[in-house]
Amino acid sequence: MTEKMLKDIADYLIKIRETIPLIHNITNMVAMNDTANILLHIGASPVMAHAREEVEEMVALSGALVLNIGTLTPELVESMLYAGKKANQLGIPVVLDPVGAGATSLRTQSSLRILNEVNVTILRGNAAEIAILGGLDATVKGVDAAGVSAGSGEIARLVAEKFGLTVAITGKIDAVSDSRRSILIENGHWMMGGLTGTGCMSTALTGAFAAVCPDPLTAAAGALISFGIAGEAAALGAPLRPGSYRVALFDQVYDLTPEKIISGARITIKGD
Amino acid sequence: MTEKMLKDIADYLIKIRETIPLIHNITNMVAMNDTANILLHIGASPVMAHAREEVEEMVALSGALVLNIGTLTPELVESMLYAGKKANQLGIPVVLDPVGAGATSLRTQSSLRILNEVNVTILRGNAAEIAILGGLDATVKGVDAAGVSAGSGEIARLVAEKFGLTVAITGKIDAVSDSRRSILIENGHWMMGGLTGTGCMSTALTGAFAAVCPDPLTAAAGALISFGIAGEAAALGAPLRPGSYRVALFDQVYDLTPEKIISGARITIKGD
Amino acid sequence: MTEKMLKDIADYLIKIRETIPLIHNITNMVAMNDTANILLHIGASPVMAHAREEVEEMVALSGALVLNIGTLTPELVESMLYAGKKANQLGIPVVLDPVGAGATSLRTQSSLRILNEVNVTILRGNAAEIAILGGLDATVKGVDAAGVSAGSGEIARLVAEKFGLTVAITGKIDAVSDSRRSILIENGHWMMGGLTGTGCMSTALTGAFAAVCPDPLTAAAGALISFGIAGEAAALGAPLRPGSYRVALFDQVYDLTPEKIISGARITIKGD
Repeated sequence: MTEKMLKDIADYLIKIRETIPLIHNITNMVAMNDTANILLHIGASPVMAHAREEVEEMVALSGALVLNIGTLTPELVESMLYAGKKANQLGIPVVLDPVGAGATSLRTQSSLRILNEVNVTILRGNAAEIAILGGLDATVKGVDAAGVSAGSGEIARLVAEKFGLTVAITGKIDAVSDSRRSILIENGHWMMGGLTGTGCMSTALTGAFAAVCPDPLTAAAGALISFGIAGEAAALGAPLRPGSYRVALFDQVYDLTPEKIISGARITIKGD
Repeated sequence: MTEKMLKDIADYLIKIRETIPLIHNITNMVAMNDTANILLHIGASPVMAHAREEVEEMVALSGALVLNIGTLTPELVESMLYAGKKANQLGIPVVLDPVGAGATSLRTQSSLRILNEVNVTILRGNAAEIAILGGLDATVKGVDAAGVSAGSGEIARLVAEKFGLTVAITGKIDAVSDSRRSILIENGHWMMGGLTGTGCMSTALTGAFAAVCPDPLTAAAGALISFGIAGEAAALGAPLRPGSYRVALFDQVYDLTPEKIISGARITIKGD
Repeated sequence: MTEKMLKDIADYLIKIRETIPLIHNITNMVAMNDTANILLHIGASPVMAHAREEVEEMVALSGALVLNIGTLTPELVESMLYAGKKANQLGIPVVLDPVGAGATSLRTQSSLRILNEVNVTILRGNAAEIAILGGLDATVKGVDAAGVSAGSGEIARLVAEKFGLTVAITGKIDAVSDSRRSILIENGHWMMGGLTGTGCMSTALTGAFAAVCPDPLTAAAGALISFGIAGEAAALGAPLRPGSYRVALFDQVYDLTPEKIISGARITIKGD
C-alpha cells in the first residue's frame, strides 16, 4: 500500500510539471513571496488575488484555491468566502490554512466560518490550530503550536471525521487523515521550523498536488512528503544556518524527482 | 545607432548611481521586497507608499512613479490614479505594469482606466497582457502570457501607437517600441521566468532609468538590457537552481557596469 | 560601566532564546518577511497581525509590540493605536519605527499621534525622522535620512527628553539615549544600508530585547549592538554583494553568541 501511494505521488509530481496548474492563493503578506516561489519551483503557476471584485473570476481559471488567514482582516475573509463558494460550484479543491486559530477569536471564528460555509477539501495546520478548531483540548501561543495533549495522528483523524474532510497536521511528525485512512510522515528537518512561512509553503504545495490529484489524502501526503524530503536535502552539504538553509530549501524543491520521493519517503499508512 | 544607444544607456546607469533618484512604487505585495531591493542594487532609492492620503505628496518628491496592479483592489487603483495625475502635473514619468490584465475584468478594466486617466510614459508587461489591453488577439492564463499570436515586436509597436506611449514587452525576446522606433533585446536567461517577481523587478528598473533618462524608449531598453545582462551573469558559475540563482541575480544587478552593458547587449534597433 | 552593560546584553540574548517571547508586529508589507525571519533567528517568536478586531487580543499574548508605519494607511494607524493602548494597560513595551516621518504629512502626523496617545517605550528611526518628530531641523528624502544638522547622539538625547522615552537612531554611528544616559555604537557595516528592511529589522530586534529586558536603554542598545556585530560578521569571507550579504546577515544573527557581543561591541556610554 505504501509503495502504491508513493508511486502515485511521484506520478502527481510529474503531472504538476506537465500541466502547470494555476494555484489561486488568498494568503498572508508575510509568506506571499515565499509561497509564490515555492509553487513555481514545484512546477505550478501561482496567482495571488484577493479583491472581492475578482476572486470568483480568478478561481474559475484555477486548478486549486489556497486560503491562508495569516494576516486576515474581515474583508479578506469575505473574499475567501466568495472564492471558496465559487470553487465549490466548479468542483475546484479548496485548501485552508487556519494560521493562529485559537490565538484570537477573529482567527478562530473566521476559520470556523470558512469551514461552515465552504466545502474545504484539505485543512492544513499545526496540531494546536487543528485541535482547537475541532473542539479538542489545546492552547495556542501566537501562531505556534503549544501544549497539545493528543498525538497528531489522532487529532487529524478526529477532526477529519468531525468536519468530513482531509486534515494535514505538520510538526515533528506530520499526520494526514481523511478519517478512514491516516498517514504518518517522518520526513522533514527541524531547521524548517526556524524559518517563517514554511507552514504556509506546505499549504501552498498541498494546493499544487490537490490540483492534479483527485484523492485529497494522497494530495496532502504528497505535498508534505515532497517538502519534507526537500527540507532534508537542504540540510546536507551546507552549514545549518537559516539564511543559507532557506536558499537551499528553494533549490531542493526545484530539484525534486519522482525517484527522490520513492526512495526518500518515511511514512506509515493506517486504515483501508 | 546601436552603439550610440548603448553608450547612452551606460551613461544613464552611471547617472542613476550618481543622483540616486527616489522611485515611488504603488505595487503588489508579492514582489514588494524584491523590487525595493533591486532598486537599491541598481543605485536608486525606493519608497513604497499607497495610502490615498499621502501618494500625491510622495510622488512629488520622486523621480519616477511605478504602478503595478499585481494584488490590486479598487482602493489601490484609486491611489494609483491620484498619484498618476499628480505625476503628470509635475512632469514625472509614470510606468505601468498591468499584471494579469485579461485574467479578470477587474485587472483589464483597471489597467484601461489608468491608461485612460493618466498619461502613462511606459507600459511594461508580457505579450498577452499588452495585446489584450491593445485590443489584439490573446488569451491570458492567470498572470502569465499564453497563446499570443503576433510577435512581441509587432504587438509593442501597435499598442504603442494606439495609446501614444512606449511599450516594453518582456519574454524570451524582449521588445520595446514607441511606435516610431522599436528595439528587440535578446538578453536574459530562462531561469528568470522561474522566479516570482522578475517581471515586477524589470518594471521597477524601468522606473529607475525613466527617472534619469528623458527618452522613454531608451529608458525602457536600458532597464531590460541591464536586467537581462545581470540575469545572464547570474547563471554563470553556479548550479541552475532558483534559490541560488535569485541570490546571484541580486548580486549581478549590483555588479552591473557601463562596460558590461556595452559589451553584453544583444539588440536590434528598427526605425529612425 | 561598559563591561556591565555588555554582560547584561549578553544575558538578555540568552534570555530571548530561553523564553522565546512572542513579538507582535503591526508593520509594513515590504519588510514583513524579513522581520519575521530575523525575529526567529535571534530566538524570538514573531506574529504579524493588524486587523483592528484582533490586535488587542494578540498584543495581550505578547512580550512586546512593534509598530512600523512603512506602508501605513489611516486604518492601520487605528489598529496601532488600539494595540498600543492595550499594551500600555498591560505593561507591555511598545517600540515605534516612524518610517519616512517628514516625507509626507500622513507619516509625520501619524507618528506624532501615536507618540501622543500611546506611551511608546522606544522610538527607533534614522536621524532625520527622529529630528523631525522632535521639532529639530532636518529634511527627509523619501524614507532615508538626509541633511541632518546635529549629531545623532545629541538628537537622540533631545528627543528622548522631549517625549520622555528612549530614542534609538541608526546610521553610520548608532545612538541610543533615555536623556539621562546615552550610548554611541560603532558596530555595523555599510552594506546593511544597501538592503531594504535593515532598519525595520533593527526595530523588530529592539522589540525582542525589550520583551526580556526591563531597561529600555539596554534593550535598544542590545538590539543595535547585536545586529551591528552580525552585520560585520556577514561581510567577512564573502564577496560584498547584496544578495549574498543578505543571506549571510540572516545566518549571522542566528549565530550570535554572548561571547561575540562582549568581545565585538564598540560602544561609548555617557551619563550616570
